[in-house]
Amino acid sequence: MKLLAYLEARRKEVDDMLESLLPPSEGPAARLLETMRYAVFSGGKRLRPVLALASCEAFGGGVDQVLAPAAALELVHTYSLIHDDLPAMDDDDLRRGRPTAHKAFGEAEAILAGDALLTLAFEVVATRPEGDGLASRRAEAVALLARRAGCFGMVGGQLADLSAERMPPSEAPLEWIHRHKTGALLAASVELGALHAGASRDDLASIARYGEALGLAFQITDDVLDRTSSAETLGKTPGKDEKSGKATYPARFGLDASRREAERLVASALDAIPRSVREPAVLAALARYAVDRAH
Amino acid sequence: MKLLAYLEARRKEVDDMLESLLPPSEGPAARLLETMRYAVFSGGKRLRPVLALASCEAFGGGVDQVLAPAAALELVHTYSLIHDDLPAMDDDDLRRGRPTAHKAFGEAEAILAGDALLTLAFEVVATRPEGDGLASRRAEAVALLARRAGCFGMVGGQLADLSAERMPPSEAPLEWIHRHKTGALLAASVELGALHAGASRDDLASIARYGEALGLAFQITDDVLDRTSSAETLGKTPGKDEKSGKATYPARFGLDASRREAERLVASALDAIPRSVREPAVLAALARYAVDRAH
Repeated sequence: MKLLAYLEARRKEVDDMLESLLPPSEGPAARLLETMRYAVFSGGKRLRPVLALASCEAFGGGVDQVLAPAAALELVHTYSLIHDDLPAMDDDDLRRGRPTAHKAFGEAEAILAGDALLTLAFEVVATRPEGDGLASRRAEAVALLARRAGCFGMVGGQLADLSAERMPPSEAPLEWIHRHKTGALLAASVELGALHAGASRDDLASIARYGEALGLAFQITDDVLDRTSSAETLGKTPGKDEKSGKATYPARFGLDASRREAERLVASALDAIPRSVREPAVLAALARYAVDRAH
Repeated sequence: MKLLAYLEARRKEVDDMLESLLPPSEGPAARLLETMRYAVFSGGKRLRPVLALASCEAFGGGVDQVLAPAAALELVHTYSLIHDDLPAMDDDDLRRGRPTAHKAFGEAEAILAGDALLTLAFEVVATRPEGDGLASRRAEAVALLARRAGCFGMVGGQLADLSAERMPPSEAPLEWIHRHKTGALLAASVELGALHAGASRDDLASIARYGEALGLAFQITDDVLDRTSSAETLGKTPGKDEKSGKATYPARFGLDASRREAERLVASALDAIPRSVREPAVLAALARYAVDRAH
């Protein structure tokens, strides 16, 4: 239970930072800002920011060094959820038990709020942490985040996921999709933390492998939970993937084999934590959390 | 006519750079990359990149110093057009005489291609021009572009423009909308050029005023041309704004007063060119071009 207390404490710090990054909903852009805030403050776990913080600390950095960029990861995650929920994409009415952004504010508002959140994320990563001596890390952080979030990362994975719905489930490039759609941003999270802690190139590469494996384990567990949990625990309608014939690990390999694969990935994530990390306990607990959580 | 030759030469350099920045359409993300390329290579004038190049040269910089970030401005402009054309926004079927991205590839593809272009733009601005000594300029360039393109810039202007359609035309905050929707990215263009040429803070502020005035003149002229040009010259259906009751300068003040206001703005753009610029001819010609062009 120590991890839950850690997660909760970090989540609060991240929420405070998000509050300070998102402008109040006033002026001619009020409706846009309101849509952005609605989507960001909807009770998420802040897993990506927490991973960035944990990674920064594991490499000897302080929380302040990466808190703002960590919060920016949540802005990117939120933008991807808003766009993913749109009628032209997954067409979801509910997210975390509340109407999705386009249901609550309208489709144009949702599209533009997503655009604005992604843009704000890059502004934050380019300007924080402050200090002339850190400019090169900030520029590298922007490049790293953009590569992980772009056409060869998250956005590429999202389109491949949608395209997969139009092919026989057995032919969908499942692992590629998960590694990009979910894994890329989780990898970016631990990379950003390590980068701002001043980790070496080798350590950055290792921790990226940790993030990629954890991301895939996380996605497989999500799909397992979608089949086995109640709506109350899940915060959304369970069994939706099954009904829509979506290609998932449980659909293709069954629940047991999927759970085993998730366990194997957790082991490989643990294995990827570099030796230079003196306190691997939190990173290890977060990797276990990817498969052990109830929702 | 010297300006047209200048524009044409610069346009070619920008197109070559765009070609090198956009990956070939292959692999699992092929359809996404194809949609991105389709939208980018549709015969645009590349006004924003050309403004960045002209500004960099005016402040004594070389074209190579800003060619990649200049091309990134076109990626941002293209993403904004793709999202603007979507059914939930302006719902346009044609753009530059061809089917819009969502008509040619589908709505999900268009949304994600826009997202990927914006993300790629930030990757380019964060990594180019190369060189350790330029990292702080690159980080500043990302921040500047993000502020101009985000909720208090272009995206804020786009939502205000859509919201204005639901209010009496006389009450729409016309100037605010144009300054943000169109002006912000044009201002960012000349700012990026000046930044990479090593211009002073004061000069950056002056050239931003040039860009803002030029942007507003450009938008007013666009709306005038929408009422007075043929479909062939325009590359899209003329008179559309008038039919949709869109709030524009010509609709509110008439054609003559709108033309006079555009002229006044060109004069104020010329006035904002800082004294430190030794060869203001191209910037001056570009400001005149904003109102003198036929489409």
